[in-house]
Amino acid sequence: MVKVTVWNENRHEKQNPLVGEIYPEGIHGTIASFLKEAGYEAGTATLDEPEHGLTDEVLNNTEVLIWWGHLAHDQVQDEIVQKVRQRVLDGMGLIVLHSGHFSKIFKVLMGTSCDLKWREADEKERLWVVAPSHPIAEGIGEYIELEKEEMYGEHFDIPAPDELIFTSWFEGGEIFRSGCTFNRGNGKVFYFRPGHETYPTYYNKDVQRVITNAVKWAKPVERQRPVYGNAKPLETISPK
Amino acid sequence: MVKVTVWNENRHEKQNPLVGEIYPEGIHGTIASFLKEAGYEAGTATLDEPEHGLTDEVLNNTEVLIWWGHLAHDQVQDEIVQKVRQRVLDGMGLIVLHSGHFSKIFKVLMGTSCDLKWREADEKERLWVVAPSHPIAEGIGEYIELEKEEMYGEHFDIPAPDELIFTSWFEGGEIFRSGCTFNRGNGKVFYFRPGHETYPTYYNKDVQRVITNAVKWAKPVERQRPVYGNAKPLETISPK
Amino acid sequence: MVKVTVWNENRHEKQNPLVGEIYPEGIHGTIASFLKEAGYEAGTATLDEPEHGLTDEVLNNTEVLIWWGHLAHDQVQDEIVQKVRQRVLDGMGLIVLHSGHFSKIFKVLMGTSCDLKWREADEKERLWVVAPSHPIAEGIGEYIELEKEEMYGEHFDIPAPDELIFTSWFEGGEIFRSGCTFNRGNGKVFYFRPGHETYPTYYNKDVQRVITNAVKWAKPVERQRPVYGNAKPLETISPK
Amino acid sequence: MVKVTVWNENRHEKQNPLVGEIYPEGIHGTIASFLKEAGYEAGTATLDEPEHGLTDEVLNNTEVLIWWGHLAHDQVQDEIVQKVRQRVLDGMGLIVLHSGHFSKIFKVLMGTSCDLKWREADEKERLWVVAPSHPIAEGIGEYIELEKEEMYGEHFDIPAPDELIFTSWFEGGEIFRSGCTFNRGNGKVFYFRPGHETYPTYYNKDVQRVITNAVKWAKPVERQRPVYGNAKPLETISPK
Repeated sequence: MVKVTVWNENRHEKQNPLVGEIYPEGIHGTIASFLKEAGYEAGTATLDEPEHGLTDEVLNNTEVLIWWGHLAHDQVQDEIVQKVRQRVLDGMGLIVLHSGHFSKIFKVLMGTSCDLKWREADEKERLWVVAPSHPIAEGIGEYIELEKEEMYGEHFDIPAPDELIFTSWFEGGEIFRSGCTFNRGNGKVFYFRPGHETYPTYYNKDVQRVITNAVKWAKPVERQRPVYGNAKPLETISPK
Repeated sequence: MVKVTVWNENRHEKQNPLVGEIYPEGIHGTIASFLKEAGYEAGTATLDEPEHGLTDEVLNNTEVLIWWGHLAHDQVQDEIVQKVRQRVLDGMGLIVLHSGHFSKIFKVLMGTSCDLKWREADEKERLWVVAPSHPIAEGIGEYIELEKEEMYGEHFDIPAPDELIFTSWFEGGEIFRSGCTFNRGNGKVFYFRPGHETYPTYYNKDVQRVITNAVKWAKPVERQRPVYGNAKPLETISPK
Repeated sequence: MVKVTVWNENRHEKQNPLVGEIYPEGIHGTIASFLKEAGYEAGTATLDEPEHGLTDEVLNNTEVLIWWGHLAHDQVQDEIVQKVRQRVLDGMGLIVLHSGHFSKIFKVLMGTSCDLKWREADEKERLWVVAPSHPIAEGIGEYIELEKEEMYGEHFDIPAPDELIFTSWFEGGEIFRSGCTFNRGNGKVFYFRPGHETYPTYYNKDVQRVITNAVKWAKPVERQRPVYGNAKPLETISPK
Repeated sequence: MVKVTVWNENRHEKQNPLVGEIYPEGIHGTIASFLKEAGYEAGTATLDEPEHGLTDEVLNNTEVLIWWGHLAHDQVQDEIVQKVRQRVLDGMGLIVLHSGHFSKIFKVLMGTSCDLKWREADEKERLWVVAPSHPIAEGIGEYIELEKEEMYGEHFDIPAPDELIFTSWFEGGEIFRSGCTFNRGNGKVFYFRPGHETYPTYYNKDVQRVITNAVKWAKPVERQRPVYGNAKPLETISPK
């Protein structure tokens, strides 16, 4: 049983009645809910809680952290970002959703601007599976279809992903690398594009399945962490 | 000055008047022509010539081979395929175009089926650049637009490319990894999707630029080839 | 519970008393034995059985195939190789051990010569973990040390692996990419270097752990297989 | 002719007579010198110059920046680091040498700790070529041998490189991914391990050749930079 914490900015839900109606328990609540049904231990944390809900105790008990943010990336304290980053390098999985591409934590782990094109025009999105052997695609058909979503288009300014699992087609003429894995230190990172707040995307069964699969994939590997620094004196090697 | 050989099946041109009209000198002739203008030394070879035009002399003098085939992949002799493969492993560059995805030489170098979806419906194609730092994208804008092309769709059954440079959007709802590099032995391979025989795609300036760039990128690296087999006896290492 | 078949050439064991002494039940027996202890369902198959023990029934019931061969790669029937290849493309995992680098099945999936340097000189090998977040490294320390092994050295003529997990250091001055993953179609391939027949390498607990981890990693992903060929007629897209 | 700026901390040269003797014109002077001989336009910049020698004018006229630092990474102003980073994302090539693994600019582009093992024990290093088709390996034999160097060992905490070109063997039992490429935005990054200040490594012809090759490889690609942000209104697509 993986221990997940779903972090959400939780601002749209309070400010925009439409969003509040779609996600009455917040995007975090909806995600935590389907993860619990899938058998995971899932808690939540939000921006306005003390330490954004990410206290040392919470972080140290989190095996996979899910991140949704948009309006208030700059209100996330740098100190918390550094703690989360350290936890990822130590092995915690991180799943960054949709507008989280511009979160401090994603940008600091990528090293690039993480910028992209976008358009809000109720466009159809199809997320095609390009890595059929990847466990994150388990149970998913040839593509996931979302009737209406915000468009995100290339160029997406990320390092080339270690594995590219989904690529999106949008009605208006753009494509987007929408399911990408990255390894950082002992930790795994998965970026997954869908989830604009004004659409009920996180109720979509395929989207839920991908996030559920990603949690399983991202859980920490149990092994001693590497040792750095001045290495032991040269061992004697017997010449032949 | 790179020495290029443009190989073409050259059957559509003879069998279909429409194709013959678009490419009066054959697809190979058109490609060789713009490569010469770009300053390369470009010869051609076709299926119906003895040894398919790929004699030892020709192959040994070829630094980059371009391959277009479709109707008659199975008429390419296995012996010639093995010679081309060996030349690639020895360092010759290989650029496989469009329906060449199903050529024997591409399949044998990939190890997979190289299968895909396709549809002939005069669809618009946009090839988006996803690797802006790659020399094969030099001089290319954010995307290449082709008003009408055959659709190729995922899943494209290739190994994950070493570098993904272009991804295509098609009007009908599909996407495709349309510019892919692969390293095999001492040689470089570039697969580039566009070029259905019934469209004047190889007259498109952007398409020409990509192929021209790819030739430059694919030329052999000058260094001693690796030595394999039983390695020299263990050298004495002085213990500290 | 993953269904594993351990395939072994099983010739050294019969021809060389030293090998027979180290592996009285054959290399396949030893590997199947520790996989059973790890909770897998593990059968065996060997070269001299009818159809090399790889009948359709066996292959269709195999989720992960392990391959050890050396002396008699050319005695493996091409027809069986093609069946195994098709099963991998359909999703079966494949773990290729040591001298299996020159097996027909590995070469056909790689597309390269798979050649390397080698030396039998009782050298110490250290397999360093370079991908600390990978599940195949679970439970493994910073490196695996094998007191005596055959040396394999670069250049190893494979495509750049999708993930490089281990790199070996050898006493005589060589290094080797010794733990490599490759995705082919719907299937996963893992190459793992150690296991020369004259050393008791497959009794090493770390080596056993890596193979056990790899089986878990390589098991097929459950999803519909991609559909290839002529795609459905263009769907109508409502213009905005 | 590529415009190169060689940046060096230039402190060891002033503080340690041994280093000053090996590199009387500083490490930067030696590197700039062989690059000029190779036909490049090569300037230098050092920590103690105003703005560390990296004024806007210098940076805007630099196509490839080479970086050597060790003692005083923390004295490099964050503002300059951000400017260099922005130039890399805009297309400037960056070559990071040896102890530059811990420079602010490398760490910010990688997103990881960039930590490693090290030992000063006059050990022999062999840098094996594992990517024989890469232009950075042009003219290099199977390996580069350095009689005495500082040891750097895995785990090297970097993202998996886009291309792994060299892997080092060290006498004391360690290996290291010593020649790694990374793409960031429109720019290319190459990390190259050798060059401890107390050894005459940058006079080694193979080391010089690798750096010379890397400059050529890293020069900016000439194309329009991607456009980000709100994309043009959805274009009308004619339904079929």
